[in-house]
Amino acid sequence: MLSAPVVSAFNPPRRILMGPGPSDVYPEVLAAQSRPTVGHLDPLFIAMMDELKSLIQYAFQTENQMTIAVSAPGSAGMETCFVNLLEPGEKVIVCRNGVFGDRMRQNVERIGGVAVMVDSPWGEPVDPDAVRAALHANPDAKFLAFVHAETSTGALSDAKTLCALAKEYGCLSIVDAVTSLGGVELKVDEWGIDAIYSGSQKCLSCVPGLSPVSFSAAAVEKLKARKTPVQSWFLDQSLVMGYWSGGNKRSYHHTAPVNALYALHESLRKLANEGLEHAWQRHHEMHLLLKAGLEKLDINFVVAEASRLPQLNAVYIPAGVDDAAVRSQLLQNYNLEIGAGLGALAGKAWRIGLMGYGARRENVALCLRALEEVLR
Amino acid sequence: MLSAPVVSAFNPPRRILMGPGPSDVYPEVLAAQSRPTVGHLDPLFIAMMDELKSLIQYAFQTENQMTIAVSAPGSAGMETCFVNLLEPGEKVIVCRNGVFGDRMRQNVERIGGVAVMVDSPWGEPVDPDAVRAALHANPDAKFLAFVHAETSTGALSDAKTLCALAKEYGCLSIVDAVTSLGGVELKVDEWGIDAIYSGSQKCLSCVPGLSPVSFSAAAVEKLKARKTPVQSWFLDQSLVMGYWSGGNKRSYHHTAPVNALYALHESLRKLANEGLEHAWQRHHEMHLLLKAGLEKLDINFVVAEASRLPQLNAVYIPAGVDDAAVRSQLLQNYNLEIGAGLGALAGKAWRIGLMGYGARRENVALCLRALEEVLR
Repeated sequence: MLSAPVVSAFNPPRRILMGPGPSDVYPEVLAAQSRPTVGHLDPLFIAMMDELKSLIQYAFQTENQMTIAVSAPGSAGMETCFVNLLEPGEKVIVCRNGVFGDRMRQNVERIGGVAVMVDSPWGEPVDPDAVRAALHANPDAKFLAFVHAETSTGALSDAKTLCALAKEYGCLSIVDAVTSLGGVELKVDEWGIDAIYSGSQKCLSCVPGLSPVSFSAAAVEKLKARKTPVQSWFLDQSLVMGYWSGGNKRSYHHTAPVNALYALHESLRKLANEGLEHAWQRHHEMHLLLKAGLEKLDINFVVAEASRLPQLNAVYIPAGVDDAAVRSQLLQNYNLEIGAGLGALAGKAWRIGLMGYGARRENVALCLRALEEVLR
Repeated sequence: MLSAPVVSAFNPPRRILMGPGPSDVYPEVLAAQSRPTVGHLDPLFIAMMDELKSLIQYAFQTENQMTIAVSAPGSAGMETCFVNLLEPGEKVIVCRNGVFGDRMRQNVERIGGVAVMVDSPWGEPVDPDAVRAALHANPDAKFLAFVHAETSTGALSDAKTLCALAKEYGCLSIVDAVTSLGGVELKVDEWGIDAIYSGSQKCLSCVPGLSPVSFSAAAVEKLKARKTPVQSWFLDQSLVMGYWSGGNKRSYHHTAPVNALYALHESLRKLANEGLEHAWQRHHEMHLLLKAGLEKLDINFVVAEASRLPQLNAVYIPAGVDDAAVRSQLLQNYNLEIGAGLGALAGKAWRIGLMGYGARRENVALCLRALEEVLR
């Protein structure tokens, strides 16, 4: 027998999470998550899931019946959308203005689809004119895929306009709302979004590990018309829906992450109680406070004002400043986490998150003061 | 704007979980899970993950470097093993003696692999002679896949013998240990298992949602020699390992389910503190107690004594008894969950779990007394 490792209990400190996610989790969400585990087919749990579905529908502003939480993080939500809708050989216009647009490309290609890339510079929103040109040049494209809020750069794209373009050219839209959901305006039905996914650990301020997704009636129709099986058994929506929407006759697919779903239920309840429009407004106000303070420190934004995400502030690291040393000091001395740059912005930018429960005045004040002290 | 649903906080009762999983969760695990969320790249969290890896290695009795917890339930662990190792056109001998062997087949076929089925009757272990014949008849097979402990029937197969057969015929072994890990003897290195997956919610008594997996050096070699990309981006082990084993240079793949990993760390710590052999012995002893009591109630086992799983007791529903009514009374009046039959055993059997923290004397006593009262 190999011997047992001797390991102490893990007692993490209370960090203030102002990076790109996970964000500060509501205390009530942590409390909800630690309630007693019940069976995944327990009638009380099934009733909770029905409530959860209605809460996700509210957050997305949709009446889509195929609305669930995938039992895995946002990248599995992305994969859920692509593997269920796309068949080998089909063409997707993929907009890329940061890390996550490129991840979409990788998803498309691993399915055997054809990704036609529309590139915009990092830090800029997706360019609707370039998208129109690509749609025009590729009349056989079946999908338009883009990231609403690019977590790697802090740029917000015009989802409403892009989805209208998709419709105009007969394409289904696939939208990454991992960082946008709960932080900025997002209206799935009104904007005509066909497939959307998000993550629990950003503006919902839930624990990481779940991905709310929603499919429109047109997306469901495309799914039902598939000629090939969905390549993932775990993410096959037709099978998953037997569990999420069977009324009292739920069929077992996989064991749901029971306690994580308690947490998501509580975080979405908090969002519903606050009201979406209030939450959007709060993120905007906290962003303005942070922006005013950063300007006094001569710290500049990566993204132009018109496309700036309130919940993810990508800023250039001031000249001569040691990136890693500053982040380490903030973490060690202030228990404050801000995010490093990712991809093309690695070493050049910081990402300061104001997400969900993290978007409050005391966090802005701490961040500004701590940065001022460390950079002094 | 669609209006916000009015939803109350979810306050589940304290159930006693004696079904096929989720099992009773250790109180310490629920407490660990609700500790403050830290960033998934926080140095303290990275150190916790290193400990977690050593704890998973201990539970599996392996020194495999490629040992992690997949950020999703056991069925995603199954898919991780198949999508990473199998390439389109490759042949797998798949043993099927219950629901989960058939799920393996579906995984193989969705990858474009060829599944050669070796069927054994439900309730019986996999037949090594039939496996030998299939290996002999299919010299081009690359893998042997089987379920160690069939959750749908309660049958234990002889993993040691089956893995030796795989080696003899030059095949890699892929083993489902979802229900076996922590409940019965399992020795990955000694038995020469090449790829194995389990679940957090069975004999580890952790919350559902995570899947420990481990790949042998030979499996890693097969993975590295792939000619085609892994079809799942989310489950691509080569990418995931950049996060799980990068030393201090971890690269971001997806956001880890931070709090769920706290929970798994704590549950595996409890297993290490108890000692694997003690845990196996405890499951066996509780099974004997339950068996003695069930015999007094004239309730018979589905599986012959030699292949019975101590942690999952599949028993025939006595003649004339209303399956659903009994389970409902146990749940409503005793807060006790036992499992329904699955697949071929639906309506014919119950599945009584004695898993992890659930395998204790008070649970056995409650179950026997409650069954006696309800069946009276």
